[in-house]
Amino acid sequence: MNHLPKSFEALIDQLSQLPGIGKKSAMRLAMHLVEHKEEQIGALTESLQRVQTDLKFCRVCGNYSDLELCNICSNQARKNGIICVVESVKDLIAIEETGQFNGRYHILGGLISPIDGIGPEDLTIEELMNRIEQEEVSELIMAISSTIEGDTTLYYLSRHTEDKVKISSIARGVSFGGELEYADEFTLGRAILRRLPIDQIFNGES
Amino acid sequence: MNHLPKSFEALIDQLSQLPGIGKKSAMRLAMHLVEHKEEQIGALTESLQRVQTDLKFCRVCGNYSDLELCNICSNQARKNGIICVVESVKDLIAIEETGQFNGRYHILGGLISPIDGIGPEDLTIEELMNRIEQEEVSELIMAISSTIEGDTTLYYLSRHTEDKVKISSIARGVSFGGELEYADEFTLGRAILRRLPIDQIFNGES
Repeated sequence: MNHLPKSFEALIDQLSQLPGIGKKSAMRLAMHLVEHKEEQIGALTESLQRVQTDLKFCRVCGNYSDLELCNICSNQARKNGIICVVESVKDLIAIEETGQFNGRYHILGGLISPIDGIGPEDLTIEELMNRIEQEEVSELIMAISSTIEGDTTLYYLSRHTEDKVKISSIARGVSFGGELEYADEFTLGRAILRRLPIDQIFNGES
Repeated sequence: MNHLPKSFEALIDQLSQLPGIGKKSAMRLAMHLVEHKEEQIGALTESLQRVQTDLKFCRVCGNYSDLELCNICSNQARKNGIICVVESVKDLIAIEETGQFNGRYHILGGLISPIDGIGPEDLTIEELMNRIEQEEVSELIMAISSTIEGDTTLYYLSRHTEDKVKISSIARGVSFGGELEYADEFTLGRAILRRLPIDQIFNGES
């Protein structure tokens, strides 16, 4: 591409390092930015710099935050004593968007995976243990993947919290609106084993 | 999204203004950037700023350039006297990538469109006329869209250059490798009217 100026090529290179953006899309984005130089490049640069300087992780739960405490930890209207444990901020955002949870969060920063050399000490498990004591937590809702790593983490936590706290896991089963024929057999099989009486289905919370 | 810090939300907003990037993708990109803060935000910011300060338009043809003359206009190895006229830099890049053209370019900056109030004076047609005189141009290859606006522009140019220069247009027809049944009827109809003797097909240039 020696017909392109260096500055433009460098921008394409940078953009194509973003996930899901190939060379062609990167070029299209770069052109759009050049064509809207005045309005967009300045604003985008500024917001990138702001993220770089202002954005940190919440001291308590590990969520993204501009302050020492994140919007959730500093929100007095949310319930104390019930913590939803997630792998990453991505999962926290997904749960927040359901509007179904009004307690606190704890971000593990990963899952235990001996095969990848990730042990409990690489995650924020110690911090979670401290919170269980200090915040008088009565329930941990585990909202982590149902994979070998997820189950290992779940098992480790249940062993180490012993009787200090009640541990629950989000429900697993066939998706709402999902057609049975498209559910994988493992999910469908477990959904049969863990069937619920019909009155619990229609009365909501069991 | 009041669970997200302001700086992060502002970045999502900016990213979702890029073409083809919705709210969900913008969030995914923003998260990736936060997770790779050190390596990527700095480099991306720098390349955006470099484009903003360095990138201008070539004084002669209108291509993107870091210098007064673009890489193509300043390339001594390219042929003089033959100019490929395109609507935008996007089209120049597409043609360069074919590797089939070794002359110069001229970017019109649009097409004549009375309905949108775009007349010849809004494009770089005067500059093109001057180049035809000064650079002793013998041929203009028109590589512009075959739309009403494209045809209007083509007609205007052919009237105003009179006999000063030969004007040709890129070939139109059914795509190479394209199956006939998927070609639109207008393209297919014109392809029949403008059929070529078989020896011209296999001998390349006609």
